[in-house]
Amino acid sequence: MVAMSKVNNKTITSPQGFLAAGLHCGVKHSGQKDLGLIVCPGGAKAAAVFTTNRIVSAAVTLSKRHIKGRSISAVVVNSGNANACTGKSGRDDALKMCSITAEKLGVRPRNVLVASTGIIGERLPVKKIGSGIKKAVKGLCDSAVAGQAFAESILTTDTKVKQAVRRIRISGRNITITGTAKGAGMIAPQMATTLCFITTDAAISKPLLGRALKTAVGGSLNKLTVDGHQSTNDTAIILTSGLAGNPVIRKTGTGYRKFGEALADLCLDLARQMAMDAEGATRIFKVVVKGAASKKDAAVAARAVADYNLVKCAVYGGDANWGRIICAVGSSAVKLNAAKLSCKIGAVTVYRNGRGVKFDVQKAKRFMREPEHTITVNLAAGRYSDFCYGCDLSEEYVRINAQYHT
Amino acid sequence: MVAMSKVNNKTITSPQGFLAAGLHCGVKHSGQKDLGLIVCPGGAKAAAVFTTNRIVSAAVTLSKRHIKGRSISAVVVNSGNANACTGKSGRDDALKMCSITAEKLGVRPRNVLVASTGIIGERLPVKKIGSGIKKAVKGLCDSAVAGQAFAESILTTDTKVKQAVRRIRISGRNITITGTAKGAGMIAPQMATTLCFITTDAAISKPLLGRALKTAVGGSLNKLTVDGHQSTNDTAIILTSGLAGNPVIRKTGTGYRKFGEALADLCLDLARQMAMDAEGATRIFKVVVKGAASKKDAAVAARAVADYNLVKCAVYGGDANWGRIICAVGSSAVKLNAAKLSCKIGAVTVYRNGRGVKFDVQKAKRFMREPEHTITVNLAAGRYSDFCYGCDLSEEYVRINAQYHT
Repeated sequence: MVAMSKVNNKTITSPQGFLAAGLHCGVKHSGQKDLGLIVCPGGAKAAAVFTTNRIVSAAVTLSKRHIKGRSISAVVVNSGNANACTGKSGRDDALKMCSITAEKLGVRPRNVLVASTGIIGERLPVKKIGSGIKKAVKGLCDSAVAGQAFAESILTTDTKVKQAVRRIRISGRNITITGTAKGAGMIAPQMATTLCFITTDAAISKPLLGRALKTAVGGSLNKLTVDGHQSTNDTAIILTSGLAGNPVIRKTGTGYRKFGEALADLCLDLARQMAMDAEGATRIFKVVVKGAASKKDAAVAARAVADYNLVKCAVYGGDANWGRIICAVGSSAVKLNAAKLSCKIGAVTVYRNGRGVKFDVQKAKRFMREPEHTITVNLAAGRYSDFCYGCDLSEEYVRINAQYHT
Repeated sequence: MVAMSKVNNKTITSPQGFLAAGLHCGVKHSGQKDLGLIVCPGGAKAAAVFTTNRIVSAAVTLSKRHIKGRSISAVVVNSGNANACTGKSGRDDALKMCSITAEKLGVRPRNVLVASTGIIGERLPVKKIGSGIKKAVKGLCDSAVAGQAFAESILTTDTKVKQAVRRIRISGRNITITGTAKGAGMIAPQMATTLCFITTDAAISKPLLGRALKTAVGGSLNKLTVDGHQSTNDTAIILTSGLAGNPVIRKTGTGYRKFGEALADLCLDLARQMAMDAEGATRIFKVVVKGAASKKDAAVAARAVADYNLVKCAVYGGDANWGRIICAVGSSAVKLNAAKLSCKIGAVTVYRNGRGVKFDVQKAKRFMREPEHTITVNLAAGRYSDFCYGCDLSEEYVRINAQYHT
């Protein structure tokens, strides 16, 4: 039996064994929340996926080291400053965030993970953050309000919090998986997140936890592109308290499959929320590429379409401009059978056997004006398929990113 | 001695032996010129570089075949319709453009090159174009007015004609090279042009003409990115009448070098004009990458920066946001020494030894607000360098491409 307070809680404090806090400590000048803390008092098994950008935040470097340990007690996060391109001082600052948190919680610095997001190239205001951490530790709570505060504390140019929850039963026990993420800009495969934090109470071995996360991220966060670039800070972390009481999942049987599917579904939910709330985005679209000669070709072609500014503008304008889609596919240099190529917008075939066909323009436009629609391209070159999520490109994207001053 | 009328003529009719025409025949609904013709009555040696998009216009397919011949008498071009993704009928239409032109000029269809630009996926109005060609042939002239009319006839969303001229002396003879291009959207390496036509009177062998064009395009049109995608129609053609009277250039000696340099310089001039007039662009920038482990790495990193929407928005906003530059470089997956990486905006060092440095923000902004500025990144990983031209991303780009309806 799960307590009602837990069922109504859709935040990262919903799984058993987690406390959270989120507050404003002074990194952001706006007065919005900029410091978040997740604590697993009993210690959590953890896994993570990090950015593959060659230039990484000091937080990423440090968390990559700490994640190797057996037990994680806390994750401390600041928004408003990415602590990237800050040299040795940046590494000291990241370590300081861990050690202050560890000290206040009575654990070791290596039991703490750290993440940062925001402006690149400025030193962290460690003093402010230090005071913030102390306050956060005092305010730790397992309520939905605390989880919500954490979700808010990680945002930058996001306009909404992104949260998702999945409840499953494994071996007769209730298991909860929750996640929160921030997105907005600098989002692209591999690792379309900036930051994503997932908590669960499933009892599962560390290797399988890592494997499930990697698979889930691969099919969700890594399938999302907003502006084609991965940030210096992208991090997805999963923590499990293991308190659900299910027999520990140690093999890739039914239990693992159930857990993995729920996790993947949760991550896709978060990825879609991120796309919807991308800077200036008014709608999102899914590009499905079929008939590719290889899985890689399918992924490359799907991303080429989702990333192409002219397609993104057409989606914004609600215009069934298949010429731009075909152009993007051809430009991506994947193997294709030009004479057999076909394309659909929603359920409307707009291109078949290498040429445009007469189609119901109004119907295609109706699909394009939905909050989400699907563009399907069949390369007619093989049997592989893949997909990618993208969002439209609006004047607002330009305004946000031209007016944002360093 | 070159006649004064030739010296004052800065259009493609300036080299000896060329006639041109440009007029409105009805492809464009706007009433603007949409049909152009270049004729070399004595027959020209020709070379061309075409799009590497896997989906190509029927015009590209046909011109690729005709360019192999010994002599080209004419190039016929229409704007307003790309004749791409039009299947077999499109191939018939392209051939018809060549055969009507050939018939009126008394040459063979295979002596005629064809190019199209405009909307993808619609059949050409061949009847209108046929009437237009007849009118154009009657109106052929070697005047600057005719050359200007041709330059206008190839435009789509361009706001200006792009023309350039270079005059050199080889073996005591005056040689003229002129070019005109259209750009605006769908511009990216390889082949950043959409369409580019170059005429010259230099006497040069066909293989060396092709080699000089390839080199020139590689260092200019192929170094320009507007929205990261190559169109289905990109074509650069050079024609030489050989009438300058210089001994035919058959070897890669001084004459070839002089010719090649002038041609490369002319192409770079046209590329910069295209970038300046890119859809919605308010300014252009050059990204120079030094210290790369390979030439390819340098090119990839330069393009990653020039293509990155967040950098393009920062340039539009005149903001010295080096974080986005560094992020783009790191995201491009090239070899780099993160601890030694450096970056300059104009003459201002903003990043050194892997971290941001204090710099004169106003001075950096002054560079960024010039019509053209240079961003220099040193990867500190080797001795190779390369560059790429990009333009900023404005609300206007979005408006043009969202409101353009198929």
